[in-house]
Amino acid sequence: MSENGALPRRGKVLTVDTMNVNVKKVDYAVRGPIVQRAVQIEKELKEGVKKPFEEVIKANIGDAHAMGQQPITFFRQVMALCTYPLLLDDNKFPEDAKNRARRILQSCGGNSIGAYTTSQGIDCVRHDVANYIQRRDVGILSDPDNIYLTTGASDGIVTILKLLTAGEGRTRTGVMISIPQYPLYSASIAELGAVQVNYYLNEEKCWSLDISELQRSLQAAREHCNPSVLCIINPGNPTGQVQSRQCIEDVIQFAAKENLFLMADEVYQDNVYAEGCEFHSFKKVLFEMGPEYSSKVELASFHSTSKCYMGECGFRGGYMEVINMDPEVKAQLTKLVSVRLCPPAPGQALMDLVVNSPQPGEPSHQTFMKERTDILSALAEKAKLTEQILNTVPGISCNPVQGAMYSFPRITLPERAINEAKAKGQAPDMFYCMKLLEETGICLVPGSGFGQREGTYHFRMTILPPTDKLMILLNKLKEFHQKFTQQYS
Amino acid sequence: MSENGALPRRGKVLTVDTMNVNVKKVDYAVRGPIVQRAVQIEKELKEGVKKPFEEVIKANIGDAHAMGQQPITFFRQVMALCTYPLLLDDNKFPEDAKNRARRILQSCGGNSIGAYTTSQGIDCVRHDVANYIQRRDVGILSDPDNIYLTTGASDGIVTILKLLTAGEGRTRTGVMISIPQYPLYSASIAELGAVQVNYYLNEEKCWSLDISELQRSLQAAREHCNPSVLCIINPGNPTGQVQSRQCIEDVIQFAAKENLFLMADEVYQDNVYAEGCEFHSFKKVLFEMGPEYSSKVELASFHSTSKCYMGECGFRGGYMEVINMDPEVKAQLTKLVSVRLCPPAPGQALMDLVVNSPQPGEPSHQTFMKERTDILSALAEKAKLTEQILNTVPGISCNPVQGAMYSFPRITLPERAINEAKAKGQAPDMFYCMKLLEETGICLVPGSGFGQREGTYHFRMTILPPTDKLMILLNKLKEFHQKFTQQYS
Repeated sequence: MSENGALPRRGKVLTVDTMNVNVKKVDYAVRGPIVQRAVQIEKELKEGVKKPFEEVIKANIGDAHAMGQQPITFFRQVMALCTYPLLLDDNKFPEDAKNRARRILQSCGGNSIGAYTTSQGIDCVRHDVANYIQRRDVGILSDPDNIYLTTGASDGIVTILKLLTAGEGRTRTGVMISIPQYPLYSASIAELGAVQVNYYLNEEKCWSLDISELQRSLQAAREHCNPSVLCIINPGNPTGQVQSRQCIEDVIQFAAKENLFLMADEVYQDNVYAEGCEFHSFKKVLFEMGPEYSSKVELASFHSTSKCYMGECGFRGGYMEVINMDPEVKAQLTKLVSVRLCPPAPGQALMDLVVNSPQPGEPSHQTFMKERTDILSALAEKAKLTEQILNTVPGISCNPVQGAMYSFPRITLPERAINEAKAKGQAPDMFYCMKLLEETGICLVPGSGFGQREGTYHFRMTILPPTDKLMILLNKLKEFHQKFTQQYS
Repeated sequence: MSENGALPRRGKVLTVDTMNVNVKKVDYAVRGPIVQRAVQIEKELKEGVKKPFEEVIKANIGDAHAMGQQPITFFRQVMALCTYPLLLDDNKFPEDAKNRARRILQSCGGNSIGAYTTSQGIDCVRHDVANYIQRRDVGILSDPDNIYLTTGASDGIVTILKLLTAGEGRTRTGVMISIPQYPLYSASIAELGAVQVNYYLNEEKCWSLDISELQRSLQAAREHCNPSVLCIINPGNPTGQVQSRQCIEDVIQFAAKENLFLMADEVYQDNVYAEGCEFHSFKKVLFEMGPEYSSKVELASFHSTSKCYMGECGFRGGYMEVINMDPEVKAQLTKLVSVRLCPPAPGQALMDLVVNSPQPGEPSHQTFMKERTDILSALAEKAKLTEQILNTVPGISCNPVQGAMYSFPRITLPERAINEAKAKGQAPDMFYCMKLLEETGICLVPGSGFGQREGTYHFRMTILPPTDKLMILLNKLKEFHQKFTQQYS
């Protein structure tokens, strides 16, 4: 107190000047200013403000249910049974759903999904995950002790990056990420104060990964940091490419040679549409390369309940598998995750259903397969449709959407538009997307939010809207692009 | 590759020597070595290994359902309806449960709790939280814009600490925490590389907080860091005290005078048992102190679905309210939480039910009130029982368990036991708890995991086991303590 008893007039303790500088450096475009403006516009529409459109179409984020995709019936039945076990006596629920629920509840403390689970995740779920991986990667063992359940894949990715971040200045950990990338990576790297090391995907070759570019990027990074992690997203986000088996083998060989820890983000593993493309897990390829590699290369791979045909983003379920992790580090990892007690139990239960879905002969099998197939076929169709329509627009060129759930087309912007954007201090594709939003209600994410080669411009658009809405969206986009190009030419 | 084509023999990329040093410093006793041993013993029992007991009683963690507490029926009904909306046509479910479910679903994307929510949390849930706070703190406004839903309270606490951590060396952020403390605090401080600043609670005065001790601690810390945050847990964990209104006022005055950001961990706000004790929120006291304080002091307070009468730990639901946070910092906070997309939607829905429980006149009100009251009365009874029985044991002295769900009794250990522990490199109370576990199957957490005054020893024990089991536990403990004392005297 000052002498007259009043409190001294001081500023706030926590200000942008006193706060964590790494947090300030974080950027997350998928929920950035354009999405905030979209939410605002939705409110304005509700309040009766006149716009040249009637609804905002949010194609900015891979949020299937928000786009009208229905949840898988079996999953929700089991989740309801786990939540309110009195329903186990209800004959509306099929026996296989009840069996799954009973099994999950038996491995919960007090038979309740309201109990904390072990920090690494429910025992039987980790076993089921390991079995799923063994079925997926035929002939290769998976150890439940190497499985950690997570709060969505994001949580696992951040946790592994956290373990890996060390050193100062030139010895600081460098993390190699693709450009374009999913901005969780750049955001986490910034937050942890690690060094972002970019390698560029080859847009001309359908966003493929060239080892020579990895080599260039690594060499350049070694001048100023200690690059020790290589992150891969396959199928790609935001770029939708599916890596060939050969490419994965080359990447693993590169990681082994250069002593890099591999992180494989494989959350879109069921989202493969293009003919001739197939999902190959890094784990499987690693083990097929023989003991020289499989006993040496450190790998963490990630999966989630949020993507594929499930789209259960809200549950925040996921797992990671760690391969060749030093046992002492694994103990540190287990300790670290224990501080947050456990991932959400409902998300763990849902993850269990994904890896332990209805089998032939079980009462829910047919419905499950139909729902799954319908969703994946519709996505395949929409992937093709998106590519085709976008490529009819002069000034837009779109690689095939081989997998995942996004297109990342390149847009040609007139010089005058670029200059006007720069004068406003905006990235040119942000300027473009903002105008698109204001004029059509379509919400996309500018390519600058994911990174792109200097002088090129893109946007990311999900292929999730129902076909009729997607058609409207694509046609509006086409019309807008033509108008925009005219206006600024 | 080396010249003969073989891979060079290098060590692992990620080892305890190369990993994040801050992670190595993290300790989390609540799930530490003693709990790992307990899990091991449970496995041994299952495999038929003979022990002097038949089951492990885990009194180490506040995990109500695991201890047999039944979930609140209404909560689980609504959650089942949200999960599997076809049940909305089922007349087994009461109308108020259906209304709650409909309202939550309407504010979810695509009416599904499988959609991502906004990063700050579902709009209607944040409004309900604000209304709840206004009912709790009569006459004081709460703004939904100041509410952030979280993945359990832990998530919120870590996020605020993350914002606050800055500076280097002598300017590094110091975080004042009570000793004994809940080890989430020390663990997060270590992980963030902030400086832990201890202030000791007064065991002689029922674990109360003395301002003179805060002053001493602050002054000492200013010699080597920048103490700018003061954390309070009320009702106390692990110490079970409930702070008086006067004490809270003094703390706020101290924080205002010394320019400290206040963090109030109030997850046990319904767990108050002792006569004459009452829960006062920091927010309420702050605003009752008048505009000189209420317009100035920065406060974040935390709540959760995991404690009180709910015990829904597995859902990882929680919220925080931020008061007087700089608007630019709030924008940074919103950005930061958006990187993880959103807290689990089921946890958010459950949090909504906690703050929007059945009201008089609604069909579920009576059952809800009965379940709630039964749980809280049983806890009050067990709090008393625990204190009484422990205080009959020579060498154990236990403060009243005024609130929360733990006792933290002091134990007198014979010199010879202390020496034997030290020879083993163990904290003496760890040595004691480990022996207790091996001989009786009772799993407690040693006081050293929470911090305690040099030369004193304690353990933390939850009061959650059902009364009959709690009696067995307390009597076994009594017997063990007498035997242990004899053995080492």
